[in-house]
Amino acid sequence: MKKTALIMAGGRGERFWPRSRQNMPKQFLSLTDDGRTMLQLTVERIQPLVGLEDIFIVTNRSYKALVREQLPSLPEGNILCEPVGRNTAPCIGLGAVYMAKKYGDAVMMVLPSDHLIKYTSLFLNTLSDACEVAEQGEHLVTLGIAPDSPETGYGYIKFQPEERLGRAFAVERFVEKPDLETAKAYLASEQYLWNSGMFIWKTSTILKNLQAYLPETYQGLCRIGESIGTEAEEQVLEREFQELPAESIDYGVMEKAGGIYILSGAFGWDDVGSWLAVGRIKRSNELGNVVEGNVVTVDTRNTTIQGSGKLIAAVGLEDMIVVDSEDALLICEKGHAGDIKKVLENLKICNRREYL
Amino acid sequence: MKKTALIMAGGRGERFWPRSRQNMPKQFLSLTDDGRTMLQLTVERIQPLVGLEDIFIVTNRSYKALVREQLPSLPEGNILCEPVGRNTAPCIGLGAVYMAKKYGDAVMMVLPSDHLIKYTSLFLNTLSDACEVAEQGEHLVTLGIAPDSPETGYGYIKFQPEERLGRAFAVERFVEKPDLETAKAYLASEQYLWNSGMFIWKTSTILKNLQAYLPETYQGLCRIGESIGTEAEEQVLEREFQELPAESIDYGVMEKAGGIYILSGAFGWDDVGSWLAVGRIKRSNELGNVVEGNVVTVDTRNTTIQGSGKLIAAVGLEDMIVVDSEDALLICEKGHAGDIKKVLENLKICNRREYL
Repeated sequence: MKKTALIMAGGRGERFWPRSRQNMPKQFLSLTDDGRTMLQLTVERIQPLVGLEDIFIVTNRSYKALVREQLPSLPEGNILCEPVGRNTAPCIGLGAVYMAKKYGDAVMMVLPSDHLIKYTSLFLNTLSDACEVAEQGEHLVTLGIAPDSPETGYGYIKFQPEERLGRAFAVERFVEKPDLETAKAYLASEQYLWNSGMFIWKTSTILKNLQAYLPETYQGLCRIGESIGTEAEEQVLEREFQELPAESIDYGVMEKAGGIYILSGAFGWDDVGSWLAVGRIKRSNELGNVVEGNVVTVDTRNTTIQGSGKLIAAVGLEDMIVVDSEDALLICEKGHAGDIKKVLENLKICNRREYL
Repeated sequence: MKKTALIMAGGRGERFWPRSRQNMPKQFLSLTDDGRTMLQLTVERIQPLVGLEDIFIVTNRSYKALVREQLPSLPEGNILCEPVGRNTAPCIGLGAVYMAKKYGDAVMMVLPSDHLIKYTSLFLNTLSDACEVAEQGEHLVTLGIAPDSPETGYGYIKFQPEERLGRAFAVERFVEKPDLETAKAYLASEQYLWNSGMFIWKTSTILKNLQAYLPETYQGLCRIGESIGTEAEEQVLEREFQELPAESIDYGVMEKAGGIYILSGAFGWDDVGSWLAVGRIKRSNELGNVVEGNVVTVDTRNTTIQGSGKLIAAVGLEDMIVVDSEDALLICEKGHAGDIKKVLENLKICNRREYL
């Protein structure tokens, strides 16, 4: 069966401010030493398994130009544009109806565009195994990451070690982000994996599940699907997509559906959740500093500096994040990386939208 | 007797980098809420005692345009230009020969241009008393500051509490910057004052002392003095001043001379020695932050931010100094303010003179 990929690139993350902006979200940034953007790396990574012509990018229509610029070889028709953001269930559903139209049935790998994977061959192996499971019936398949710490920022998936299908385990349930105590218990139980947000299924399977658990969304998607290739296509998409209720695939489908399988992945996954991740991912010097740009450091340790043209002199810093951009500069103590959103809230309240 | 002021404005401080530069030293910067520059405040402060026509600014000739710009009402002839920096003894001597030429003898107040004084009327009272002492004979008079901490960055002056002349005490000796233990002993003895670098004497008195303790300098100064008003003036100054040995007035004269008196001043003196001083001097908010410019703070305390046009977002900072300028940004932990010079050393070594 045809293998396809649906890469979700419509996110509007705020955690890489001031580099990420409303018109330049994280997936379009380069956050590694490699120089390529997160989206480019995601597409490149998957290509041994899926040809470029079978890779679809679903994004907000305001980012279409960015996608074309970053992926000039991708057929333009493979960029699916959401008129508005409606979370992952409508996003994935939109991909599914387009693929159903193009391929009839196909195995569809749903992938975020803003995660990093260190070991591509291990990843592709796991993904390939996942495709086999997805093809063998009407299974919803996902990849889970074996936790190495009690993270409270991720969803978790409980699996049943005794119920296997090839390399996959049956999923008992999806759970939302836990508190620290619960996360510790999950870690100790050895029966929970992190929800990576990667899914593998046949287009027919996900559409059936959407029909069962999000019937309203399914109806709207069907109307969009019928219009594909007709003159009304754009107009129908515009009208119908806005009407779809915003819903995540996790809450809307995965927490309710049966027949879910999970493959545990160990391929150096990193969701690159904040500027802290850049300190982990990029090469640091002997003092633990990750420094780029026009920078002089004196007595500075464990600090990440992303300069621009301006000279930055860092004196006596420890555990800091400094990010310069053309019009805004962030200076943040690493322990406060989660508070960058407060800066953006403040800017919103003050109606300083040019900085968002 | 005529009262005159010689304001020394030739310094090249590095401690306010990146705002202070080789072509924009500290005395030409505004470092208070007031908005006026250190030099402007110094001139303004002294005017109830000395008319503008009797105030002289001695500076490096490369700063003449800055002085004229900042003091447009000052007669141009009152700007004395050093062809090169030769420390304070030649600088003060140059002022003395010009004043001797203009006034015959006069009381001359020698004042740094880069200190702050909070209580102007108390200062002027002390200065006025000092002038009386200077006029009554051939005394070298200085103002000392009662120490409130064992500072190791200042010179100290030991006075003799039992030997008085009006409000002035006889000076036993000038001592250079002490180590911490010595500074603590000085503080405990109650017989030492900080050397403020402010001196009051007759031009005739200081010229006699220069003749006695720095005869070579004195000879050169005499040749300059003779040329004043002649066609050769500029040429003689150029030639002779370069030949003068660099020497401080403290080491060259005050540590050797007799007949020195000191008045203890309590007028809110601050030498504004580093960016730390700005955190003290300027109005801070309830979190101890002194913030100027386009700045958003989140969970930030006891931090000084001098912004420029760019938005600066400070998240989770404590005890930091952030100074933005057009081409360079400083981020410095307050305890490391003394290390800013290391940044400049680094820039010199790398021959990045555009930032000095």
